[in-house]
Amino acid sequence: MNIKVPTLIIDQTTVNGNIERMARKAEISNAIFRPHFKTHHLAEVGKLFKHLGISKITVSSVSMAEYFAKHGWNNITIAFPVNLLEIDDINILASKVQLNILVESLHSALKMSNKCTQTIGVFIKIDAGYNRTGLTPNDTEIGKIIQLLGSGNQLVFKGFLSHAGNTYSAKSRIEITSIMDENKIILNKLKQEYIKQYPDIVISYGDTPSCSLSDNFSGFDEIRPGNFAYYDVMQYHIGSCTLDEIAVAIACPIVAIHTERNELVIYGGAVHLSKEFIEADNAQRLYGYVVNLSDSGWSNPIPGAFVSSISQEHGIIKMLDKDLKKYKPGDIVGVLPIHSCLAANLLRSNYKLINN
Amino acid sequence: MNIKVPTLIIDQTTVNGNIERMARKAEISNAIFRPHFKTHHLAEVGKLFKHLGISKITVSSVSMAEYFAKHGWNNITIAFPVNLLEIDDINILASKVQLNILVESLHSALKMSNKCTQTIGVFIKIDAGYNRTGLTPNDTEIGKIIQLLGSGNQLVFKGFLSHAGNTYSAKSRIEITSIMDENKIILNKLKQEYIKQYPDIVISYGDTPSCSLSDNFSGFDEIRPGNFAYYDVMQYHIGSCTLDEIAVAIACPIVAIHTERNELVIYGGAVHLSKEFIEADNAQRLYGYVVNLSDSGWSNPIPGAFVSSISQEHGIIKMLDKDLKKYKPGDIVGVLPIHSCLAANLLRSNYKLINN
Repeated sequence: MNIKVPTLIIDQTTVNGNIERMARKAEISNAIFRPHFKTHHLAEVGKLFKHLGISKITVSSVSMAEYFAKHGWNNITIAFPVNLLEIDDINILASKVQLNILVESLHSALKMSNKCTQTIGVFIKIDAGYNRTGLTPNDTEIGKIIQLLGSGNQLVFKGFLSHAGNTYSAKSRIEITSIMDENKIILNKLKQEYIKQYPDIVISYGDTPSCSLSDNFSGFDEIRPGNFAYYDVMQYHIGSCTLDEIAVAIACPIVAIHTERNELVIYGGAVHLSKEFIEADNAQRLYGYVVNLSDSGWSNPIPGAFVSSISQEHGIIKMLDKDLKKYKPGDIVGVLPIHSCLAANLLRSNYKLINN
Repeated sequence: MNIKVPTLIIDQTTVNGNIERMARKAEISNAIFRPHFKTHHLAEVGKLFKHLGISKITVSSVSMAEYFAKHGWNNITIAFPVNLLEIDDINILASKVQLNILVESLHSALKMSNKCTQTIGVFIKIDAGYNRTGLTPNDTEIGKIIQLLGSGNQLVFKGFLSHAGNTYSAKSRIEITSIMDENKIILNKLKQEYIKQYPDIVISYGDTPSCSLSDNFSGFDEIRPGNFAYYDVMQYHIGSCTLDEIAVAIACPIVAIHTERNELVIYGGAVHLSKEFIEADNAQRLYGYVVNLSDSGWSNPIPGAFVSSISQEHGIIKMLDKDLKKYKPGDIVGVLPIHSCLAANLLRSNYKLINN
């Protein structure tokens, strides 16, 4: 593979499969598919989406919107509470592409209405139970914000948006789908309240666990999952994907072997994989699964092998005797990341697309 | 401060103080001061060291060595088990600067001896109790590696090196200094064994907690702490520094306020601060302290305020009522990071030096 340092390997066949499956479900549900591009944050991976007919995207920052606008994307929602300090950049961006922003307070809506010089779509962020950001559905600010939008300014009310991040801590498939149902009820109730006055408004929903586990998005006008393009060990543990659907592995050089404690030391640490972990039943922290790489992809996870700890540049892999003896320093091993979005962000300048 | 997005604020006065204190202790101990540059990884911060007379440095990767070589540093130790896949790059680098590498196996030493085309210094990495990397002091491979070095190749035996990463989990000052003492005993025993045959060998030791808590490094020939230049909340909890000695804060825009649950939402998440946390006594995860920023620095941490959770771009700050009401979206708040090395790595293209 000609790898020398920790490198994100992106299997395009798997990415394509993941996109196609999600796009088809959106299509049969008659929902707009506006995938979140924060997971890959790469123009080259964006092209895979474009080839499959996707034209509308979600991002999480103004700079990420600028990056994708520069690479030809012209219908972008920044799904993050608007950062008032970037109003000038938002105006410039909105002069080039069809841009939607999120507001979740009258304060921010007022500031935006005073400073916006371009037509900008505005979603109101609704907190449907995740309790991270957004207005609760009964908040009286919602009506005030809607009243403000379009009144002597170029802000256009686009609808209501929620993110069900609470699916990540759900304990079962039923809990995940019931979170999705709750979002559907809450967003639809708001839509019904305003649809007569604003016939074009949409309700937008997104998160990878529920969009993966659900076969049908009807009841939502738009879905915005992101992680599904790559998936990862966390999603596998949630039940959102199979191991075969994980589309990225990090190639890591082996730099030392400690047979006495069944450990491989890899060049692959917190600055490559991130410090995200999941806790196994025995409270052991798990920083990644271990696979063998080939030019065409990677093996199933090696049974009993896992990344057990991580420092800035080092990773420690625990492995059974019989497997450990197959390796020597200078070999390369693959790591399936716990959280692909964070690993992909860290390796944005060091990746390799395979199976293209 | 003209900040729009999450930005690493580096207080040069504090950095200078931290460097001077450590350099003085090394000087009175007659130890070479070879600071680890992985913490800042910035040429501009490197200059602060250079102005204080430091000329030898430690880094953790070949690419980091190349970066600092390009910025005028010509005596560099790569304190990471040699990555055999980068032998060509190591040879090129060694043709330009005085380079030291680490080996911890006969296998790697043999491969290096076959492929090295330049004079390269070699430290043998010793595991003095941390159990991450290195040969245990009694390992028979040590003698075999030393025998190999210089025998028909350009590898020069430089001495023994250890890293006491176990000080990070120590529970008291006494435990930290006893780890340091143990390293001293182990490395000196090895030195004594080989000093007659190799009169120029040195023993090199490093970690921020013990080098900060100790006033005297005598017994070591060289020290390599790194984090001390910035320090962080983790070091403060260990007892390595005071709050005033923390030299970096991350400026984060406030994007939402949720008074009903005493929370600020900041633009500042895992891709800016990293997912490193420490656990408070009540098992609450702590992702950073919160400070007020000014043009000349920042306040003491706001009592009762802390970053309580973090996702890719969002951070959630818990704060007391009386403080919460002082803020509105569009304001900026500062976060003292848990682990400055990781935050600095994430913000390498978005930082600001103050007090210069």
